[in-house]
Amino acid sequence: MTERTERMTGPLSGFQQETLSADEIAAHAAVVGPLADSVRALIDAVIRTEVDDDEIRAATKEIEALTARLARRQMPGPYGVLVNEHGRSRAWGNAVMGLRNAIAPPVEIVHEPDGRVWAEFSLGAPYEGPAGLVHGGVSALILDQILGEAASAGGRPGMTGTLQLRYRKPTPLGRLYAEAKVERADGLKTIVRGTLSTSEHVCVEAEGIFVLPRWARELIEARGVGDA
Amino acid sequence: MTERTERMTGPLSGFQQETLSADEIAAHAAVVGPLADSVRALIDAVIRTEVDDDEIRAATKEIEALTARLARRQMPGPYGVLVNEHGRSRAWGNAVMGLRNAIAPPVEIVHEPDGRVWAEFSLGAPYEGPAGLVHGGVSALILDQILGEAASAGGRPGMTGTLQLRYRKPTPLGRLYAEAKVERADGLKTIVRGTLSTSEHVCVEAEGIFVLPRWARELIEARGVGDA
Repeated sequence: MTERTERMTGPLSGFQQETLSADEIAAHAAVVGPLADSVRALIDAVIRTEVDDDEIRAATKEIEALTARLARRQMPGPYGVLVNEHGRSRAWGNAVMGLRNAIAPPVEIVHEPDGRVWAEFSLGAPYEGPAGLVHGGVSALILDQILGEAASAGGRPGMTGTLQLRYRKPTPLGRLYAEAKVERADGLKTIVRGTLSTSEHVCVEAEGIFVLPRWARELIEARGVGDA
Repeated sequence: MTERTERMTGPLSGFQQETLSADEIAAHAAVVGPLADSVRALIDAVIRTEVDDDEIRAATKEIEALTARLARRQMPGPYGVLVNEHGRSRAWGNAVMGLRNAIAPPVEIVHEPDGRVWAEFSLGAPYEGPAGLVHGGVSALILDQILGEAASAGGRPGMTGTLQLRYRKPTPLGRLYAEAKVERADGLKTIVRGTLSTSEHVCVEAEGIFVLPRWARELIEARGVGDA
């Protein structure tokens, strides 16, 4: 299925208009989701494989051929962010949450009615920094996304202005939990706090300031994309 | 080629002993490096492909079969960090620099005699956050690694204690430059500063505090792994 999109102009110039219906999006996700999942497993296998050199060379050739087949018809640039008429966005290329992005674990974020957002996920070999531990920058990557989601959930989407991370304990690879909540709004700024934890203790604390970009200010003034 | 390693005990318990010679490492890199590169291109193609659903389903099956072949003989866990008798480490699974890790761009870091470390690299579709821009957390991920490398280059390897990021301008996908240098040492702490830039301006500023772990303190006291 081709995701035909049109580049939008004006305050939403960073976005593209969503042209698929909810049913079409679900049907498409059921096809491309497993493709990205298969690449996630491949990334892990490439790090850990101990098969012999001839087998590795053969696999390399096959992967190159597969890539050529998939690239025969493709978007001209990165995936971008699609927005539908209700203002809901879809970022399947996103480095943390993207359904199509094999770099993304992916992190699926749950929104609570009180504004808190959280996610539970597993990080394996591809997210390693120190031996057996999650890369400190990977913790930062995921916390940046979760904090940004909390800001958006509070009706104040924004670009990261500052991000402060405090590493309290080493973060082991495996099952992890992240959560975030808006602490307060201050003019164009939204201050958000969050944590990354194992089931036993907090490993990383984060505080971020997210700044409302012009398109979001205009969107809020217009009370939603549909009316913009 | 199998990378047989033995888990080390004592102060270096987080590491494994390197058992390959420099020549063997180079020969092995020439085989597994292209494999990881092929997966990097595949990750990009999966994000951007517009081929039809049947073709995507066929590709998914082939990737699953390739993964099974590579996983037929593999390390029991994540790649870890190997250290040779000169104290040089090799982290081919690392999320930023890992030769075997398709999530890593990879960033190849250059060490200058004055202690400054830098890297030039390109970030494409898999590193997207806001449309057309590098994910703020990806900037944090790379800066954490570069700052940590600067601390290590100064003879003071450490775990990230805190990391502060200031996002001055949106970071476009494409060619980027990062650099870092130790600002000062303070007891067990090393304070490092760095930036992420386009050819025109600084996009992100970072300051990190890296804390010498016990194994590094014992290593420094013993003047190198070989004597430890």
